[in-house]
Amino acid sequence: MTAMVTPHLFIPGPTNVPDAVRMAMNIPMEDMRSPEFPKFTLPIFEDLKKVFKMKDGRVFIFPSSGTGAWESAITNTLAVGDKVLMSRFGQFSVEKYADLTAKDTAHEIKAVFATHNETATGVSSDIAGVRKALDAAKHPALLFVDGVSSVGSLDMRMGEWGVDACVSGSQKGFMLPTGLGILAVSQKALDANKSLNGRMNRCFFSWEDMIKTNDQGFFPYTPATQLIRGLRTSIDLLNAEGLDNVFARHTRLASGVRAAVDAWGLKLCAKEPKWHSDTVSAILVPEGIDSNTVVKTAHYRYNTSLGVGLNKVAGKVFRIGHLGALDEFMIGGVLFAVEMALKDSGVNIKLGSGTGAAAEYFSKTATKSAMAKAA
Amino acid sequence: MTAMVTPHLFIPGPTNVPDAVRMAMNIPMEDMRSPEFPKFTLPIFEDLKKVFKMKDGRVFIFPSSGTGAWESAITNTLAVGDKVLMSRFGQFSVEKYADLTAKDTAHEIKAVFATHNETATGVSSDIAGVRKALDAAKHPALLFVDGVSSVGSLDMRMGEWGVDACVSGSQKGFMLPTGLGILAVSQKALDANKSLNGRMNRCFFSWEDMIKTNDQGFFPYTPATQLIRGLRTSIDLLNAEGLDNVFARHTRLASGVRAAVDAWGLKLCAKEPKWHSDTVSAILVPEGIDSNTVVKTAHYRYNTSLGVGLNKVAGKVFRIGHLGALDEFMIGGVLFAVEMALKDSGVNIKLGSGTGAAAEYFSKTATKSAMAKAA
Amino acid sequence: MTAMVTPHLFIPGPTNVPDAVRMAMNIPMEDMRSPEFPKFTLPIFEDLKKVFKMKDGRVFIFPSSGTGAWESAITNTLAVGDKVLMSRFGQFSVEKYADLTAKDTAHEIKAVFATHNETATGVSSDIAGVRKALDAAKHPALLFVDGVSSVGSLDMRMGEWGVDACVSGSQKGFMLPTGLGILAVSQKALDANKSLNGRMNRCFFSWEDMIKTNDQGFFPYTPATQLIRGLRTSIDLLNAEGLDNVFARHTRLASGVRAAVDAWGLKLCAKEPKWHSDTVSAILVPEGIDSNTVVKTAHYRYNTSLGVGLNKVAGKVFRIGHLGALDEFMIGGVLFAVEMALKDSGVNIKLGSGTGAAAEYFSKTATKSAMAKAA
Amino acid sequence: MTAMVTPHLFIPGPTNVPDAVRMAMNIPMEDMRSPEFPKFTLPIFEDLKKVFKMKDGRVFIFPSSGTGAWESAITNTLAVGDKVLMSRFGQFSVEKYADLTAKDTAHEIKAVFATHNETATGVSSDIAGVRKALDAAKHPALLFVDGVSSVGSLDMRMGEWGVDACVSGSQKGFMLPTGLGILAVSQKALDANKSLNGRMNRCFFSWEDMIKTNDQGFFPYTPATQLIRGLRTSIDLLNAEGLDNVFARHTRLASGVRAAVDAWGLKLCAKEPKWHSDTVSAILVPEGIDSNTVVKTAHYRYNTSLGVGLNKVAGKVFRIGHLGALDEFMIGGVLFAVEMALKDSGVNIKLGSGTGAAAEYFSKTATKSAMAKAA
Repeated sequence: MTAMVTPHLFIPGPTNVPDAVRMAMNIPMEDMRSPEFPKFTLPIFEDLKKVFKMKDGRVFIFPSSGTGAWESAITNTLAVGDKVLMSRFGQFSVEKYADLTAKDTAHEIKAVFATHNETATGVSSDIAGVRKALDAAKHPALLFVDGVSSVGSLDMRMGEWGVDACVSGSQKGFMLPTGLGILAVSQKALDANKSLNGRMNRCFFSWEDMIKTNDQGFFPYTPATQLIRGLRTSIDLLNAEGLDNVFARHTRLASGVRAAVDAWGLKLCAKEPKWHSDTVSAILVPEGIDSNTVVKTAHYRYNTSLGVGLNKVAGKVFRIGHLGALDEFMIGGVLFAVEMALKDSGVNIKLGSGTGAAAEYFSKTATKSAMAKAA
Repeated sequence: MTAMVTPHLFIPGPTNVPDAVRMAMNIPMEDMRSPEFPKFTLPIFEDLKKVFKMKDGRVFIFPSSGTGAWESAITNTLAVGDKVLMSRFGQFSVEKYADLTAKDTAHEIKAVFATHNETATGVSSDIAGVRKALDAAKHPALLFVDGVSSVGSLDMRMGEWGVDACVSGSQKGFMLPTGLGILAVSQKALDANKSLNGRMNRCFFSWEDMIKTNDQGFFPYTPATQLIRGLRTSIDLLNAEGLDNVFARHTRLASGVRAAVDAWGLKLCAKEPKWHSDTVSAILVPEGIDSNTVVKTAHYRYNTSLGVGLNKVAGKVFRIGHLGALDEFMIGGVLFAVEMALKDSGVNIKLGSGTGAAAEYFSKTATKSAMAKAA
Repeated sequence: MTAMVTPHLFIPGPTNVPDAVRMAMNIPMEDMRSPEFPKFTLPIFEDLKKVFKMKDGRVFIFPSSGTGAWESAITNTLAVGDKVLMSRFGQFSVEKYADLTAKDTAHEIKAVFATHNETATGVSSDIAGVRKALDAAKHPALLFVDGVSSVGSLDMRMGEWGVDACVSGSQKGFMLPTGLGILAVSQKALDANKSLNGRMNRCFFSWEDMIKTNDQGFFPYTPATQLIRGLRTSIDLLNAEGLDNVFARHTRLASGVRAAVDAWGLKLCAKEPKWHSDTVSAILVPEGIDSNTVVKTAHYRYNTSLGVGLNKVAGKVFRIGHLGALDEFMIGGVLFAVEMALKDSGVNIKLGSGTGAAAEYFSKTATKSAMAKAA
Repeated sequence: MTAMVTPHLFIPGPTNVPDAVRMAMNIPMEDMRSPEFPKFTLPIFEDLKKVFKMKDGRVFIFPSSGTGAWESAITNTLAVGDKVLMSRFGQFSVEKYADLTAKDTAHEIKAVFATHNETATGVSSDIAGVRKALDAAKHPALLFVDGVSSVGSLDMRMGEWGVDACVSGSQKGFMLPTGLGILAVSQKALDANKSLNGRMNRCFFSWEDMIKTNDQGFFPYTPATQLIRGLRTSIDLLNAEGLDNVFARHTRLASGVRAAVDAWGLKLCAKEPKWHSDTVSAILVPEGIDSNTVVKTAHYRYNTSLGVGLNKVAGKVFRIGHLGALDEFMIGGVLFAVEMALKDSGVNIKLGSGTGAAAEYFSKTATKSAMAKAA
């Protein structure tokens, strides 16, 4: 431990900010009403659409957080008293959703809520399946998806999956500090907003003024320009690596983590492989061990920030965030720290087993291009 | 003009970010659930109270903008249908307010809204006078003040003036990028919130969860940590100079600007001296001149960002923001650029008249301590 | 005055670092033996040749200062006891040089030293004239030029003028922090080095190892990578504006300063216009005034750093550096501060006369392209 | 591998720059002749003396590299033709040195050169032993020590060991970018300089002008102010952790690396434990393996920069630098990457063996204070 080294960050967000993004944000302020400003903002709106893989609609950038973007999605499309279908804690069964929407022949359900990646438990869900269920039931409900810990890290296909609102924030896959709520909405959601006619009280998160000013490249109130400058670079980095390569890297790194968990003889909170999240792993500690001890030990003894267990799994799981600007070395480092923290906390594991298993996985699957370069 | 030099920023916000603040924000991300985090956050809440000169109550920090802080103030204390007293465009007459609240013997008015410093017209208002009027009428209405372009630059005395909610943002007197809505509320406002019992729909801007988590040094959702790190340094800078010295500096610099306006033979939008804002001057251009031409000329020819006229005074005024991290040199620079832009736009002024008048003022009033040092 | 604002820097170097350059240097360290490193370094050597307008030869980058680059130029081409032609304090008369080299029919003079721009007195010299004199005398001496305060700001034509070594540093026209000595040498100088065969003791500044490793894109010892990263961006900025535009901008800004000096009724140290330096003006104060008082007053009262008078003109002149990343606004600011400092120091000048004269000059000569944009 | 993550730097310098140091260097330029400048520089000279544990003498800061500081040490104390005792490649036997100095009864040897830590082979040497040998022989030679890869990381006791000149650079234990040559010299060395009377040609690296100006807090030519600002913070960080704690941390981390090397069944270049360097480990690869392949594989496949083998051990060793701002996590990361690179390069090792052994060592020896905090 030394205060000279900034703690190693493996919470499921905020994530590490790449140096290029840090540089892009370390700038003097600018005039957000300058006639040059739209040349900067308008392409960002377009480029974000590609990150969300949208077919139509638009993207809003609020100076807020993902929570704010959620408030915007809801208050701009639904009215007080509207019935929605939503699961507790973000976990849901597609079968149950299919069943409930099929039964709702009166179409009382105005919106269906699904979480693409559930951060507390490390569970990924089948959004395409929800769409299929809605289509099978010919149900017109809006489909709202929480993509806070997925967009930019996992494949989000708003157009193909018929997602009507996808909520994201700056501090996860976009690898920025917290401060932007990024909300992508379909044309269907925009239409719903129009017919709603502003029945819910709102102002800051309203779409109407945003649309009017965004279309000119401006904002209805002072935007968080510094973060949007960072966002420009973040999108450029995602595109330079290639979105699909970014997703593949997340899968690869997550697989390394899961190999380590297996080797330790521990289990993930997400039981079936199809639910395994590629951005965060929630790991169950053995009976008799407090997962908070593991987190504290990693923090104070090994300068490593892990995620604690939340709500129902508090004390039972700890979480490793593995999203954003990460590579094999960093996964090796966190597994190394976690192994020691587990052992120090009384978990009976063999030191080197997890790092060894991850190394095995990474070494076997090193990409051909990287190998060719090294040859 | 050269692209090597960042445009000189003299809009009334965002303001220039001091180097120390830029440094403080150029940092890796951190865990906002770390056990060390409250040691950082709790003193900030306390120190902000001193900036607002509060007697009781608390300060909220939202990842938003001033507009968001306004939404928070309103939706947490008032219900739909509540009657309020508010002027258009932020300008109001204390006499009118006194009259209206005196007449409201039934106390139907739940809140009175006043703008401490009106940014579009460069008008400062007498908040102490509003308090006196309310007291004289024994009126229990909440007093809500817009301090967006005043707090940290002009003297805001929430305690003494009985202000119940004061709204501010990060990008003006706090000299930070946009992204924080800072809301200071009195105990009376907190009580109003409790008795309101959440009748207005809101979530992101709710006080209840904020209070619960802030008391522990945490936040209900991911805070804009990077900006709050900058805020720490910003408050330190304000305190190092001394709040009263900061205010005196703003008055001094504004007086230099006004001396130049006089010398040019032009008029301010704010007619009486008591209304002259020490953070922004809105300057009327002569008949037949479009103030937008002046702003564009300053921008494209002299790399200087001025504020345009808004709403009713569009085309008639241009604005010089003179708040935040500024000194005499910079005022000299902007007056120099404005003089040229005015002349180039067809205004008949003598070049050097404005800079000369401001220099005269600054030279005469240079502080003794600075003079002693130079001796 | 406020500590929130960094002092305004108008010494003749170090100069202001553009934001893009600051960003480019705010990076993690890198491996200077990485196989990727030459892809970064090799183009820099080539691009520097264009800045010096060389026909042949090469450029060395030492982790040192201009003084070090001078030591390198001398110790790698001359031997102890070699006769050279050099003026005191960098000022020289081309006629005298012509005379002395013409008389030296035995060619005992091995090298002729000239200063392109003399920083202490603000005097520019006619390097092309020195070349003509040498050619007329058919003298084979090496021509060594001090370009520390000229390269990147004034037109340096090594190839056309037959300059054999031109010394520069990072902290002037290259707009970087101090730390790089940049030495451009002709093929003739390289040949002189070879025939010298290392008779002077040196190691750090030796060319032999530099050449061997530079040719591969590496350095014989750890290079100042951070600054070289900044240099990459600095060269890019010079090229983006266009070298000739950069020179024209320096002439324009210097002309504004000289218009102010005239208006103040003061004189430059450099008497004839042909000697007027476009990067620094040394201004004589009236009898009975100590120029150090002006400098101190500007520093302590107006947060502005001017250059003091050095050597023979100490106390008699103060200097305004006007090179690097500067524009009209900043010139206006410094003239504003200087006017006040002059008046405060007892010089009888009319406030506004200098800024007015400069504004007059800038307004009249604003480029058409800037005007078109503003229209 | 992803370009979003800056390569992990484990060469034996430059080392990782702590965030606080990066911040301290990301500043506007300043006037190095400002009357305030000495308040900044003078304490640095004093504080550096404590880092070198000097009894008398002074420290010079050159805008150069360690190589330049060496040139300064030699050319300021010795004359051409002086006899010195020096080993090849920095490795030497104290016994041999004792023998040679004892035999030199005529005291022809003017200086004895020793390397505290030899970077190419990872060998630490017994400087106290050299002093003992010189004392035993009553030999008056100057003792010159290369501390480039030791000062700030290993215990350097100039006073106690009678070291007359110790050479260091900014980019190793001081955790800065390359660009400063830091030279600490004893009073005896300063006396030698005086009696030498400048017989060797030098200017840039001369002590005389440095002493004269440094005593006033200034420099004879433009100093590398940006790096010296960083140095201020670097020294502060070393003192905040405590020099002895910094040294203990280096020993601890190096021990972890050595445990891994043992577990891999590999050998260090430095055979005896007393020679094991705590700042760099040079690791021998098995016969038939090219160590450059290991380095390239780590670079291209695992984004990790290792040191290659130099000179006689090129192709036979690779090096892990473990000095500066490092902690257990980062050692875990590099061992993880090295394991994979070794395996990929054909070395028969068990993945997880090295990381496991290092984890074992770190876990066992975690400091009590860290454990108490975590409890």
